Amino acid sequence: MSPAVTNDSREPGDETTPIAKRILIGDPLTSEMLDDQLLPKKMALPIFASDALSSVAYAPQELLMILLIGGTAFLAFSPGVAAAVVALLIVVVLSYRQLVKAYPSGGGDYEVARTNIGEKAGVVVAAALLVDYVLTVAVSVASGVDNIISAIPGLDPLRVELAVGFVILIIIVNLRGVREASQAFAIPTYVFIGSVALMIVTGLVRWMLGDPPVAESAQYAVQAEDLTQAAVILLILRAFSSGCSALTGVEAVANGVPAFRKPKVRNAQTTLVLMGSIAILLFAGLTLLALVSNVHYAENPCHLIGFDCEGTPQPSLMAQVAAATFGMNSILFFLVQAATACVLLLAANTAFNGFPLLGSVLARDGYAPKALNTRGDRLVYSNGMIILGAVAILVLIVFQARLTTLIQLYIIGVFVSFSLGQIGMVRHWRKELRLLSKKAVRERREANVGLFINSLGAAFTLAVLLIVSVTKFTHGAWLVFVMIPVLSFLMIGVNRYYRDVEHEIELTDDVHYGSSGDLALILVSRVQKPVAKAVDYALAAKHDKTLAVHIAVSKEETLEVQTEWDLHKMPIPLVVIESPYRHYAAPLAAFIRKYRETHGSSVVTVYLPQYIVGHWWESLLHNRRARRIAQQLMLVHGVTITLVPWLLDSSELIYGRRSRPLPGDDRLGRYEPAYGLVQHLGNEEKQD
Amino acid sequence: MSPAVTNDSREPGDETTPIAKRILIGDPLTSEMLDDQLLPKKMALPIFASDALSSVAYAPQELLMILLIGGTAFLAFSPGVAAAVVALLIVVVLSYRQLVKAYPSGGGDYEVARTNIGEKAGVVVAAALLVDYVLTVAVSVASGVDNIISAIPGLDPLRVELAVGFVILIIIVNLRGVREASQAFAIPTYVFIGSVALMIVTGLVRWMLGDPPVAESAQYAVQAEDLTQAAVILLILRAFSSGCSALTGVEAVANGVPAFRKPKVRNAQTTLVLMGSIAILLFAGLTLLALVSNVHYAENPCHLIGFDCEGTPQPSLMAQVAAATFGMNSILFFLVQAATACVLLLAANTAFNGFPLLGSVLARDGYAPKALNTRGDRLVYSNGMIILGAVAILVLIVFQARLTTLIQLYIIGVFVSFSLGQIGMVRHWRKELRLLSKKAVRERREANVGLFINSLGAAFTLAVLLIVSVTKFTHGAWLVFVMIPVLSFLMIGVNRYYRDVEHEIELTDDVHYGSSGDLALILVSRVQKPVAKAVDYALAAKHDKTLAVHIAVSKEETLEVQTEWDLHKMPIPLVVIESPYRHYAAPLAAFIRKYRETHGSSVVTVYLPQYIVGHWWESLLHNRRARRIAQQLMLVHGVTITLVPWLLDSSELIYGRRSRPLPGDDRLGRYEPAYGLVQHLGNEEKQD
Repeated sequence: MSPAVTNDSREPGDETTPIAKRILIGDPLTSEMLDDQLLPKKMALPIFASDALSSVAYAPQELLMILLIGGTAFLAFSPGVAAAVVALLIVVVLSYRQLVKAYPSGGGDYEVARTNIGEKAGVVVAAALLVDYVLTVAVSVASGVDNIISAIPGLDPLRVELAVGFVILIIIVNLRGVREASQAFAIPTYVFIGSVALMIVTGLVRWMLGDPPVAESAQYAVQAEDLTQAAVILLILRAFSSGCSALTGVEAVANGVPAFRKPKVRNAQTTLVLMGSIAILLFAGLTLLALVSNVHYAENPCHLIGFDCEGTPQPSLMAQVAAATFGMNSILFFLVQAATACVLLLAANTAFNGFPLLGSVLARDGYAPKALNTRGDRLVYSNGMIILGAVAILVLIVFQARLTTLIQLYIIGVFVSFSLGQIGMVRHWRKELRLLSKKAVRERREANVGLFINSLGAAFTLAVLLIVSVTKFTHGAWLVFVMIPVLSFLMIGVNRYYRDVEHEIELTDDVHYGSSGDLALILVSRVQKPVAKAVDYALAAKHDKTLAVHIAVSKEETLEVQTEWDLHKMPIPLVVIESPYRHYAAPLAAFIRKYRETHGSSVVTVYLPQYIVGHWWESLLHNRRARRIAQQLMLVHGVTITLVPWLLDSSELIYGRRSRPLPGDDRLGRYEPAYGLVQHLGNEEKQD
Repeated sequence: MSPAVTNDSREPGDETTPIAKRILIGDPLTSEMLDDQLLPKKMALPIFASDALSSVAYAPQELLMILLIGGTAFLAFSPGVAAAVVALLIVVVLSYRQLVKAYPSGGGDYEVARTNIGEKAGVVVAAALLVDYVLTVAVSVASGVDNIISAIPGLDPLRVELAVGFVILIIIVNLRGVREASQAFAIPTYVFIGSVALMIVTGLVRWMLGDPPVAESAQYAVQAEDLTQAAVILLILRAFSSGCSALTGVEAVANGVPAFRKPKVRNAQTTLVLMGSIAILLFAGLTLLALVSNVHYAENPCHLIGFDCEGTPQPSLMAQVAAATFGMNSILFFLVQAATACVLLLAANTAFNGFPLLGSVLARDGYAPKALNTRGDRLVYSNGMIILGAVAILVLIVFQARLTTLIQLYIIGVFVSFSLGQIGMVRHWRKELRLLSKKAVRERREANVGLFINSLGAAFTLAVLLIVSVTKFTHGAWLVFVMIPVLSFLMIGVNRYYRDVEHEIELTDDVHYGSSGDLALILVSRVQKPVAKAVDYALAAKHDKTLAVHIAVSKEETLEVQTEWDLHKMPIPLVVIESPYRHYAAPLAAFIRKYRETHGSSVVTVYLPQYIVGHWWESLLHNRRARRIAQQLMLVHGVTITLVPWLLDSSELIYGRRSRPLPGDDRLGRYEPAYGLVQHLGNEEKQD
């Protein structure tokens, strides 16, 4: 085990920012600008609702696809199944209206479960949501790419590459910050709602006029499986489970309340209801239109008799309906496909709002690394976004961006969080009712309404969670059932770790100051200017005793150092320490120990001259000895390390400053102290 | 461009060494043990001669293969071509006997060219040799694997994996140190010499008795190319070029003189002549036996009419001769193949002696990074070995361990270095002759002999270099002609860089000590024990002024820090600095600038409390803020950084020490200072 000192890799938020980062992400923003980044409703809808709305692109398809496993006759069940999904959606939207009002801080189900049920429930909800955010990105992007391929089949071989490319694009856009992302994304959402609504109306009107649109796949017969009665019920439940993917995204609003403009709660609630209504209309309309136009979408396209399943990819249900309604390769067909793809990518974007926000809440509460609670230059939680993007890319690569496989893992997390959130809300209202005086009639009535709605919500979502778990477990969802507990344990572990550290470093009142007899050691490898600087600085600090030490690794070197030391009349004595194993830190530690044995315990400061170079490749040409020695001496009791930087000329070329005072230069007036700083701060001040 | 401070990644030579490294590499050795690691002759032969000897495994094969492109009739040229190679080998060995005597320091051709021709010639030789060391590893390992596959054809699909695996094995063996490697490797070299000699004698005796061995491939006719007269000459020259690969490895002895026991020069010379004689006998014998047994080895095995070129791999010439002489699958056949494979891996091992030694010489002269001149725990130049191994693995993967392709790149580097070395020796002798008085008859005669031999060597090697360059350039060798200049320029660049830095930091006598008015700043993010420790240490150093500073990134945090600061009655004042962009270093730098404007220029020491954790994963849970701030403040003029380590309990669990004195603990006798050190040094002291 190596001593893992937290190291110095760069992170968003660094003071010196590469130009490439500026171009991709934009100029940094002050903390005061946080309020300006908040969302008005008409912008919040595309940002937060796109997840729920976009599920229209795959929920009807997956619902009908599962039923079609049993043969075309099973499509007769679809109106019933779709109605059940719609009913559930209504209940969930109403439940969340209550939740948003009671817990407007953006903690959503996590906060509700944590406050009303307990820490562990909160952590499980958080884990479930984190998993589901990742899957939201994966499923949405996979579906988006699927719809692009449905319009341009030639792109089929690039499916995974396209998906990964889109995730990277979304990461970059999001690192620029919330509002700009919203502006860029508002139009396609409205175009999607408009074009899909137009398609549904056109198709249904044609149907009522007796000229229904006919999908291309209507001609293919379906190779059905023989099913027992139990299998029939299971198939219908599976279809329902897949249809329930239409519900994902509702929680996005609950977790995103702080990003709304004031009045936050009212705006969030309105957005929620608006979103729910549109989602229901599009879901129901599209399912109906798909039935009307006789779309046959198969889990395994080779089960479509007559379809060349080896050749062209199976077009998405959305593409089939659009082609049937507007005509293949018509402008409106491409518009629907483009808008669908865009809104699906927007849905992925939703997760990039939700995940980092949840991450920061978890970090604040000590369940996740503190780095997740650090706002980057653009006021967004950059670290969370990068983690989400990276994991989503991994998932897309592992599952080869196959929508039907990814859907199997999806929505379990959401329903875990739905259920625990609703149960939490039930407890919340019951507590409220206990605390409210009998006279507060209006408040009591409100609480009772809340209790009723959330009880209904809890019952529904728990039932659905059960159905979803049973029907999906063997189809890949077991992975989610592994990930959620693992993540939960990790979060609990992180929390306990932080708690222990907090306790360990808590300042108590029995602390006495005034350590004395301090010793300064200046490490000398060769007698050069950096050493002279270190000597001068050590003398300036007026330690009780100041010594130069040389670790003797080679005899010639040692002789040279001793000669030079005398030659240059260095103002402090030089001690030579033998090191037969060519080590540096260990002999120095031994010397410190012996010194203490004779002179008594004392604080020891080791001065290490260190080069600062301008180019990364220069660091290959210098020994990392100073850093390594520092790392090892820091493990020794009572030793502090003083790094005396020596800026090489190359660093001056790069950073445009002259920052290397030699002892005495200051007094001799050779040096202009402020110059370097002005240069350094120049970049900052321009941005005001 | 980020400020590339040389960072703290671990390297061989670290004081705290993981157990895995100990097991693989062995216990560390003291510098005094260097002499014990030197090689007696009977050990030096297998180490340094294996390269030259092992080329017997591929040189005859490649020679005959090229001739066979013209058809079986061209094999009649082979005795002549082989004789030319032998003549060249004799000249080169004699030339090197002179070189070893004149330059016994191990610099070899590099030192000769540098001293007698000039810096640039020396650098070109070094670059050529470095390239060739890499190719020695690649060619030898590829040929070794080829011979293994010739005996066990089932391994053919694992060709590249086997090659890479062997390189990794050789790296590990070499990191353990010279002598142990030698002991493990001596036996197979002698077995190889013995078994191949036995095979040659057996085969030739059978031939003379009128029962010559017949190779399996004798039955295959060869599909020959139609050649013009010019093409015939070119083909013969190409065959000669490929045969010259028998010469590689001669320079290994010249570069390895310091590794010999005393008398070094005599021992090295004896080894050289012994090696040359054996190589000539084996090369000539094997070529003759291959002709006698009618081996048909084709560049493209599909040109062998009747051979199933898609199915089994073409067995190596060595395997075909061994099978013909001893019988396929006989014990002696397997012995020859095993010894051949072993000696080829040993040849790769030679490069692991030569490359790091040359690297250290280059580093000493300032042409390569200093890290190449650092002996590791086991007294070997570990960094050079790791670089050589990594590049060789890359080459093997890129060229898919195909021997015939790799041979095309090979020996150009060797002949560049041969030629320049010999030219340098010619100049050396002429200088000697000028300097020697007329009376020194014996010395003058010696010098004249040397001049004659090295002039011959220079003429021969230059001619061969020309031939090799012309015949191989279009067959892939252009890559070497690119690499040698690139490496040369890099080395010159490195040298100029070091020279500039040396000049920059050279201590001059106009240095005055006594900077005054120093300021200590203690960075406070929260009021906890680590801060108290930093305050105590800063007070112990008795700076002229000591201040605590808090960077105000969030209002709540700032308020808490101020409250706690007063509550705990901290002994120094607290300054709060605003930071609207949530940066740390820049506002602090601005504060230092303003402080200097009012109080005059002064040395500033910034105290940064820093956590030391026990497990790597813990570092993920702490901000790297201290390190990042340190990195950025080091760019500011006149600022030094003092890292005040705070060892978390976890580090205590891992490193087994208690090393966290609170202010006042020492005086209160709560702390036993030596304990941590004894633990820390325990590992060292055991090894004496």
